[in-house]
Amino acid sequence: MSIDFKVVTRAAEMRQAIVHAQQAGKAVGLVPTMGALHGGHLSLVDASLAECDRTVVTIFVNPTQFGPGEDFDHYPRTMEQDLAQLRERGCWMVFAPTVEEMYPAGHETIVDVGSIRKPLEGVARPRHFFGVATVVLKLLNMVPADRAYFGQKDYQQTLVVRKLASDLNVPTEICVCPIVREADGMAMSSRNAYLSPSGRRQALALSQSLELAKEMFTAGETDVARLHAKMLESIQAVGGVEVEYIAFVAAGTVDLVQQIEGPTMIVLAGRVENTRLLDNCQIGF
Amino acid sequence: MSIDFKVVTRAAEMRQAIVHAQQAGKAVGLVPTMGALHGGHLSLVDASLAECDRTVVTIFVNPTQFGPGEDFDHYPRTMEQDLAQLRERGCWMVFAPTVEEMYPAGHETIVDVGSIRKPLEGVARPRHFFGVATVVLKLLNMVPADRAYFGQKDYQQTLVVRKLASDLNVPTEICVCPIVREADGMAMSSRNAYLSPSGRRQALALSQSLELAKEMFTAGETDVARLHAKMLESIQAVGGVEVEYIAFVAAGTVDLVQQIEGPTMIVLAGRVENTRLLDNCQIGF
Repeated sequence: MSIDFKVVTRAAEMRQAIVHAQQAGKAVGLVPTMGALHGGHLSLVDASLAECDRTVVTIFVNPTQFGPGEDFDHYPRTMEQDLAQLRERGCWMVFAPTVEEMYPAGHETIVDVGSIRKPLEGVARPRHFFGVATVVLKLLNMVPADRAYFGQKDYQQTLVVRKLASDLNVPTEICVCPIVREADGMAMSSRNAYLSPSGRRQALALSQSLELAKEMFTAGETDVARLHAKMLESIQAVGGVEVEYIAFVAAGTVDLVQQIEGPTMIVLAGRVENTRLLDNCQIGF
Repeated sequence: MSIDFKVVTRAAEMRQAIVHAQQAGKAVGLVPTMGALHGGHLSLVDASLAECDRTVVTIFVNPTQFGPGEDFDHYPRTMEQDLAQLRERGCWMVFAPTVEEMYPAGHETIVDVGSIRKPLEGVARPRHFFGVATVVLKLLNMVPADRAYFGQKDYQQTLVVRKLASDLNVPTEICVCPIVREADGMAMSSRNAYLSPSGRRQALALSQSLELAKEMFTAGETDVARLHAKMLESIQAVGGVEVEYIAFVAAGTVDLVQQIEGPTMIVLAGRVENTRLLDNCQIGF
């Protein structure tokens, strides 16, 4: 499988190879990442390998989706290890551009998907989804894949990507894959590596609060205020986690609900040892 | 030539036909228009016909590039005549979507190309280039052409389109064709149809002022303040034209210059009988 594996840093070279493969009837899958690959990323790669003839992974720590004072500079970078895993798995190409290749001098264009970028993550990171939407659109133009794969852990991001693809008539099919969790239930994230052993233990309160809400809902609780209060209480009982938000939204939207009356996402963000962590789950299928 | 001529209103149908043609090795040219075709549009069509194997013309009066109180409702619509001309000329397809096809309920995404949208037209029409950039990007995704043709008359628009294509890695080559003028020198525009015979005579002062500047420059005048003053004076001498701006900018930019020291665009906008008219020319090649 590794014979054809290629690492490309120039967009033009990569695009040509992709168009060529598509002309030969091959379906191309794209997995955009910021590297520091974990089981969540690899599940996206596996979905692409299963559904497409050729899988392209992009590795680019995108500066425009980080705010001032955020962790762009020390975001984990594990390129050699990432490439070894992708080669072994059967990926076809890795696109690992420089910042200059992605944002040549004078780059200014921004894609704004509107209202769905504003609440939740948009409050803590006001320009984050400008950066995400713009880089994803650029990558989809550079890698004109048949399908592109995103992880459900970044729930609001999946909405932003679907919205931009739909509003701008991007022909690539957007595929969202389930959250991958550690054995103890913690959602996999490249940022988990920032945590000390004790912070890692405290952070588990986040996924456990989602489990608690699921149990309460299964037992008949549909009042969001009560679910919210119990989740918060359970996290605060552990200590060490600063909850940024716990939001109950209608699935596929960022619209808050007060009662669980249909498919609902519980979306949360918390800070442990100054690391922001996200998690979510669906209830009310 | 007319056998294959097709008018399509659904994006999916059109995209499929285009991808199919490209897979068969045909180069596809795109001419985006708002209809009410005149010699300027037809010169773009002719350029595409000469350089591409298949020419697609889009006809869509895009509501999002009109401001409140502008002429969206009475913008000239001459669909039958437009189609007859395009068929006769040898076009392959016309894409004439409805507003609902282009902007389904909930459409919110906006493309902002940054600083170049702000001066000149951006002052009089603050949201105009959001609408232009967004619809052009949508059309380029719907019609993934090898080349797309735009008229130089809308100078700032050509910069906006080039900028979005470059910043967002749109693979289509952006081609800009020269202004086409009436016999007396007036730049062709669908909005010329709004003018009364006397307004049409007064409007000629705009293109004539550009001719005057060219003559002065050829005779050695490089001071922008003096060129500007003479142009304004010549337009005011005719009467009936309210000048919105006369700007001297470095070619390929919207950066004002004070001296003609290299390729320079003179870009102007004026209002005659409540119709805004644009024109421009290059000096200092």
